[in-house]
Amino acid sequence: MIVLLGAGGYVGTAFVAHLTAQKTPFTVLSRGQWDPSRPQTLQQHLRDTKATFLINCVGYTGKPNVDACELHKQECLYGNAILPEVVAKACDELGVAWGHVSSGCIFTGDRGRDKAGNVLGFAEEHAPNFSFRQNNCSFYSGTKALGEEILGYREVPDPGGTTLWEPVAPAKGYIWRLRIPFDEKASPRNYLTKVMTYAKLLEARNSLSQLGEFVRACTECWEKKVPFGIYNVTNPGSVTTREVVALIENSAVGKALVKSGKSFSYFEDEGVFMKTAAKTPRSNCVLDSSKLAAAGIVMSPVTEALERSLRNWQAS
Amino acid sequence: MIVLLGAGGYVGTAFVAHLTAQKTPFTVLSRGQWDPSRPQTLQQHLRDTKATFLINCVGYTGKPNVDACELHKQECLYGNAILPEVVAKACDELGVAWGHVSSGCIFTGDRGRDKAGNVLGFAEEHAPNFSFRQNNCSFYSGTKALGEEILGYREVPDPGGTTLWEPVAPAKGYIWRLRIPFDEKASPRNYLTKVMTYAKLLEARNSLSQLGEFVRACTECWEKKVPFGIYNVTNPGSVTTREVVALIENSAVGKALVKSGKSFSYFEDEGVFMKTAAKTPRSNCVLDSSKLAAAGIVMSPVTEALERSLRNWQAS
Repeated sequence: MIVLLGAGGYVGTAFVAHLTAQKTPFTVLSRGQWDPSRPQTLQQHLRDTKATFLINCVGYTGKPNVDACELHKQECLYGNAILPEVVAKACDELGVAWGHVSSGCIFTGDRGRDKAGNVLGFAEEHAPNFSFRQNNCSFYSGTKALGEEILGYREVPDPGGTTLWEPVAPAKGYIWRLRIPFDEKASPRNYLTKVMTYAKLLEARNSLSQLGEFVRACTECWEKKVPFGIYNVTNPGSVTTREVVALIENSAVGKALVKSGKSFSYFEDEGVFMKTAAKTPRSNCVLDSSKLAAAGIVMSPVTEALERSLRNWQAS
Repeated sequence: MIVLLGAGGYVGTAFVAHLTAQKTPFTVLSRGQWDPSRPQTLQQHLRDTKATFLINCVGYTGKPNVDACELHKQECLYGNAILPEVVAKACDELGVAWGHVSSGCIFTGDRGRDKAGNVLGFAEEHAPNFSFRQNNCSFYSGTKALGEEILGYREVPDPGGTTLWEPVAPAKGYIWRLRIPFDEKASPRNYLTKVMTYAKLLEARNSLSQLGEFVRACTECWEKKVPFGIYNVTNPGSVTTREVVALIENSAVGKALVKSGKSFSYFEDEGVFMKTAAKTPRSNCVLDSSKLAAAGIVMSPVTEALERSLRNWQAS
């Protein structure tokens, strides 16, 4: 039996849909059914339901966007850095495995290009470079990085110059990094909806996570018993905002949009974006998802995943 | 009526003694009498007791020392950065003023010397320089700095080169910074006891807080209605470890110690100390306490306070 926390959120809803579709037994534990200040109330549910695995989709992302986290720092820190460890510890004590939805937004930029010109991303062994410890990040990203740290990771200087991210003790659960989710259903949380509706866009290169593939991949980690630890659960590769717009313009939904008068415009640069549209720095980054692939869990290349979502687009 | 949280701790016990001695009506609210995940349970107590002021001495410092915080990160972050804001917000909503015990350990070093050769300390307007954002600190110090940030302060670059620490909105309570407490009663938490009993000492310059004077000064902030905001509640001046040892050696208790065979030895330098005795960096810093003095609240010069505590020394 799988216990799901945060089932009502954007990611949780996708887990509910996936587990239901594949007839995996699961139970939802909602806020109010247990008291985080008394972890034994969670443990009682784990015992009652004979849980073997817990999926924690609880997180504080800010609405309508990450700027809101700057105004609700305590709630943000609590949801992203305190609660994950309360849950993990409660599980660990009962020998229940767990998976925690983290975020790729604890990185900024990329790791350059290989000889063939492919953009290299940050792997799980690299320490977050968009965090409180770098003092360059949004409060949201800071709390997500601190969440991983509290779950048992620490920065270790690497003689090679980069800083590594190593577990203090053997990992007892999964940390799944989601990165800019999208799928085929229009939603204010869907990256494709954002690109289609924002007045102005910021050109940047990013890795992305197709939400349906993300929850399938996470679930497979448990089903296939891949080793515990951190996984970048993103579609292989990266795309720029302009590339995403080009894919939209080539799709039926995009053509209809353009026909109705929509045009895509861009901020001159990140400086102008920060001055006029954002209160706090945004993460734009490329992640390396090869650890997940090496574990035998397949996600489709990012461009393919975008094209498929656009092909199957469902207006809200 | 004053409500006191954390009355059982080292600092809380001193508040209880002070308020009792001066016959100030107060009530103690202990852990278990309210639920931090439901702040209305705190507010009910505030209403029931007709509270006008709340003193929050709850904090997670680690036992026997700050190294323990590295092993209990969630509890440390919760006690030092989450709970203060839960309490402050509950008070703010009811119009109850509050005071929070913060720490000077969010700074490292000093600000050089003036022309007369006096060591200059960090004032309340200076941003913490020993914090997650500087990535040079213990987990404990990081959580204390984050606690002040969540209570409404933010880093603002100063054209002069230093970084300032400014409130986002007008302060609604006091943030009292304690720094290496000591008094005349032997205790494992008393700095004088530590200097007398540690096998080896680290030579460093610090500001200190005589605990009895600290709780009196904090209480006076409220009694004298000094403006809300941050206050460095330390004895004016600073001392080096060797200076403290000299004061001990000149005292009756120190002479008895030396007679019984005690000698004071020092780590060669901070590098050796970090390698052999500590798991996480320690803050050593000088604070400027002139804001408190300017508000009309007097604390005795640090050397005088040390001499008095040694003169009145009570073995445990």
